[in-house]
Amino acid sequence: MPGDRLALPPDGRQSETALTIARGVRRLLRARGFSSLTELPLVDGRRADIVAVNGEGEVLIVEIKSSAADLRADRKWRDYLAACDRLYFAISAATPAAIMPAEAGLILADAYGAEVLREADPRRMASATRRAVLLRFAQAAADRLHRLADPSGGFDV
Amino acid sequence: MPGDRLALPPDGRQSETALTIARGVRRLLRARGFSSLTELPLVDGRRADIVAVNGEGEVLIVEIKSSAADLRADRKWRDYLAACDRLYFAISAATPAAIMPAEAGLILADAYGAEVLREADPRRMASATRRAVLLRFAQAAADRLHRLADPSGGFDV
Repeated sequence: MPGDRLALPPDGRQSETALTIARGVRRLLRARGFSSLTELPLVDGRRADIVAVNGEGEVLIVEIKSSAADLRADRKWRDYLAACDRLYFAISAATPAAIMPAEAGLILADAYGAEVLREADPRRMASATRRAVLLRFAQAAADRLHRLADPSGGFDV
Repeated sequence: MPGDRLALPPDGRQSETALTIARGVRRLLRARGFSSLTELPLVDGRRADIVAVNGEGEVLIVEIKSSAADLRADRKWRDYLAACDRLYFAISAATPAAIMPAEAGLILADAYGAEVLREADPRRMASATRRAVLLRFAQAAADRLHRLADPSGGFDV
């Protein structure tokens, strides 16, 4: 086992643009002390694009919008407001910032980094929700690492 | 990025025996609903061999002992009693079960699975400690995945 080199499988669910934005956003989050996880199932089977947690247990969600059409197609983004302390959208320079809803923060990203164009209004999530999201985050991250280390270790999803 | 296949680096810190035991233990934990993470720094810079969390937030620690000498060399294992709800040792069939301290549970493992020889006494950890351990677990797991996806994403450890 020590010599094994195991692989993260490619994720076919996201566009190249979305993956590029995610990379830059996660670098920014990391620089601010937040550990981030992609594609975390949270509400009604929907997956949050990026969920991030810092050492104080603050929870951010970042929803990636790779185009104006991507925003228009999403009628349920407000569902995430209650599942985090701050909600952001993240876009590339190809998407006009002016169309993004003012109820969420806004991050501009490329593949190398990102900046916050508008801070999100902090709203402290309910403590039972925080506990549930943190557990889900912890278990999902650990399970993904476990699956990489031992693909036949009992994973059926 | 979608086509990338990224690799878990081999971990040079553990013996082949310890890695084999860890694999079997993690399969057992998973079958019991626990998500597990290896080598999590917790107390005084010591790393717990395996920390596991279930959907209720219960925290287990499993310390791997690859030999009787490995147990004798460890004078600080009791430090972990306060950092979890249940503490177990895990051994292979090559280590006599009778020498393992009765204050902790005992797991017998090989590379394919494991069984609990003696249950650990549950002792409910302090809620502030639980919160701290869960956050540390969540951040460490997410950071390891992030580093795999973006090795130059700002990781200096």
